[in-house]
Amino acid sequence: MSDSPYILFDEWQGDYARRTKVMTTSAVRDLFAAASRSDVISLSGGMPDTHVLPLDQVKKLTTYVYNHYGDSVFQYGQTGGLPELKEEIVKLMAELGVAIEPRDLFITTGAQQALSLIGESFINRGDYIITEGPTYLGALNAFMPFEPRIITVPFDDEGMRTDALEEVLTKLARAGGQAKFIYTIPTFQNPGGVTMSLARRKRLLELAHRFDVLLIEDDPYSRLRFAGEAVPAIRSLDDNMIYLGTVSKIFAPSMRTGWVVAPGPILDKLNMAKQGADLCSSNFNHLLCLEYFRQSDWHATLAEACGLYRMRAEAMLAALERYFPPEAHWTHPEGGFFVWVTLPKYFDTDELLATALEHGVTFVPGRGCYPRRGGLGGNSMRIAFCYESPERLEEAIKRLAEAIQDRLELYRAFIKAGVIRE
Amino acid sequence: MSDSPYILFDEWQGDYARRTKVMTTSAVRDLFAAASRSDVISLSGGMPDTHVLPLDQVKKLTTYVYNHYGDSVFQYGQTGGLPELKEEIVKLMAELGVAIEPRDLFITTGAQQALSLIGESFINRGDYIITEGPTYLGALNAFMPFEPRIITVPFDDEGMRTDALEEVLTKLARAGGQAKFIYTIPTFQNPGGVTMSLARRKRLLELAHRFDVLLIEDDPYSRLRFAGEAVPAIRSLDDNMIYLGTVSKIFAPSMRTGWVVAPGPILDKLNMAKQGADLCSSNFNHLLCLEYFRQSDWHATLAEACGLYRMRAEAMLAALERYFPPEAHWTHPEGGFFVWVTLPKYFDTDELLATALEHGVTFVPGRGCYPRRGGLGGNSMRIAFCYESPERLEEAIKRLAEAIQDRLELYRAFIKAGVIRE
Repeated sequence: MSDSPYILFDEWQGDYARRTKVMTTSAVRDLFAAASRSDVISLSGGMPDTHVLPLDQVKKLTTYVYNHYGDSVFQYGQTGGLPELKEEIVKLMAELGVAIEPRDLFITTGAQQALSLIGESFINRGDYIITEGPTYLGALNAFMPFEPRIITVPFDDEGMRTDALEEVLTKLARAGGQAKFIYTIPTFQNPGGVTMSLARRKRLLELAHRFDVLLIEDDPYSRLRFAGEAVPAIRSLDDNMIYLGTVSKIFAPSMRTGWVVAPGPILDKLNMAKQGADLCSSNFNHLLCLEYFRQSDWHATLAEACGLYRMRAEAMLAALERYFPPEAHWTHPEGGFFVWVTLPKYFDTDELLATALEHGVTFVPGRGCYPRRGGLGGNSMRIAFCYESPERLEEAIKRLAEAIQDRLELYRAFIKAGVIRE
Repeated sequence: MSDSPYILFDEWQGDYARRTKVMTTSAVRDLFAAASRSDVISLSGGMPDTHVLPLDQVKKLTTYVYNHYGDSVFQYGQTGGLPELKEEIVKLMAELGVAIEPRDLFITTGAQQALSLIGESFINRGDYIITEGPTYLGALNAFMPFEPRIITVPFDDEGMRTDALEEVLTKLARAGGQAKFIYTIPTFQNPGGVTMSLARRKRLLELAHRFDVLLIEDDPYSRLRFAGEAVPAIRSLDDNMIYLGTVSKIFAPSMRTGWVVAPGPILDKLNMAKQGADLCSSNFNHLLCLEYFRQSDWHATLAEACGLYRMRAEAMLAALERYFPPEAHWTHPEGGFFVWVTLPKYFDTDELLATALEHGVTFVPGRGCYPRRGGLGGNSMRIAFCYESPERLEEAIKRLAEAIQDRLELYRAFIKAGVIRE
């Protein structure tokens, strides 16, 4: 991850803030270097397939932006984002059944920045926050600098287990504590791939109300459904919460454009935090997003991308059935980018990664998707089907299965020798 | 500043992090709304004149970017920025007499983000940091969330007063304390407009070494010199410090592209912090910056802009001489964007701002350029000459002088009545 490959001596070692000790580098980022070797197939990154974008049209839209917006294409923008783009996002939200006005939202430098600004605005050192476990490692990276205590709640095929959540909230309340917020990715969860059922969404809202905890719905993937029935956004069922959206998966990550829907006073805090964080996002990018949503047939482009994701997911799931050992099980996503694989408890996917790299494939080891290293997730991994062709995905799963097989033989010998338990 | 104009009740009031109490909204931002009234001339914002940009060429370069870089135009980028752009920035730095390699730098979402990441990486609550007083209010916004104690050192016509700095450092050391860093804008300081002499730069480095304090040189303006002789960047005299640069004033603010030059271990910390803050900056913007610096005659464009800034600064300074009362004095910049005006001690520029708005002109009240409201800067203001025509600037200064005159008459009556002292 380092941009400076040679570290001899850090004379500023004593000077860093305490918070830097709990900040860990993202496993995904660490792997980017390895994954860029052409012989390695990466199942690590959550990159959307941007090859489907209508390049000629985007070129024309860019020229349109230059011709129509004059100086503002190059200037500083408003901290809260381009007002016209807010109006366009209001329309996007209406399609999801969420009725808002432009004043109910705030544009950020990617949804990642929204997570960081929320962390900054809400978390005091030692505060409890609740996330799914496993959860999006970028969210952990965003929250960790503010030194929260993170409680994770497991999911099953219906999403976050609200029975486990109730238990956590009850215990906290009994101990006189309270969580600052519950962070969930209810649809095509990252890294789980699972989607929270409507019943669970309603139950989650009930619990958030009863225990008076702020709810944050992170929703980058819900438009990437390629099977099953749509489930309403939690924000469509309740106004008094935070919703995060992004153009990364419906247009392009390089726009670095996300948004927050939240009650006004919360938006005020985020606005203040953003002034310190980066002043404003790129007006140039906002204008291009604006015209992309206004003028292009982006729904058709997205449908094309979803068709590709469906074929890739099917190829990955078929390859998993074909090549993976009976000891492994995995989730069956109806959209999004990821499958979550669980191996026997004695398995260590950090160690597996080295073997997998030798076999020419990478993935995200599960530990990185939990708050603390050395704790949960050691026998699991995230594999992404979003970016590679079905053929490459089958090859990648085959390689990964071989790497798993190599280690399984070792583990089986250990089990036979009584060194580890099944 | 709010994106939500109606605030009735904030039910989350008890939930915000403690740090939000010390975060204040930027006076500049608050004024943007007022300043956008077409009858008001704004001397508030530090916007570069982007009208000089060669629009046709930028259009061609954008097409070039789309044609030559394929999918990466739309994708996530590396956290540390586009490697090719790093190489180009190395050349920019060489022009300033700073010899570095790509691994010595890290690209951020504007230099503003660099300030925020530095704050996050170094400041524990209660730590001392040292800045010029007045200083860039965006730097204050970036540092304040981490709750430092900020000590300000005044400047004179030769920049930060190193005698006062030595006094501060000595006192701190005697009390067993130490500052985490010294933050300076040595060239065409914001808001002061003053430039630190070479002798002072050397003295500053001596003091930083002697007291073992990290030095941060923020350098957005040094290429905007329109009079006098260039003074070497502090970073050209010493390697073991932090230097911040930006494309905002040499290309376009909407690129949101800045950079940090620092020792490797520090860059590693910033990289980690950036992963949580926004994952990566915009590859699209980086590619356009890259080709702008590679292919356009940007030095000529910048020279044209500087010619405009020179005429505007001259117009503003002439108007100040002509219209401002003898009680006022001000700095005489040889570059950059700003003039710093000091009025008699009994003057309050927060109150003046309301009167000035009635007269159709805005400025940045001095208090916002100091760490704490209610303390220093109440009788001063920042006025920007960068964006308006000489004619509009003269009109603005005339209006501002009238507003000052209005209040001076009041103050003079108070002085006569013995209510306030001269």
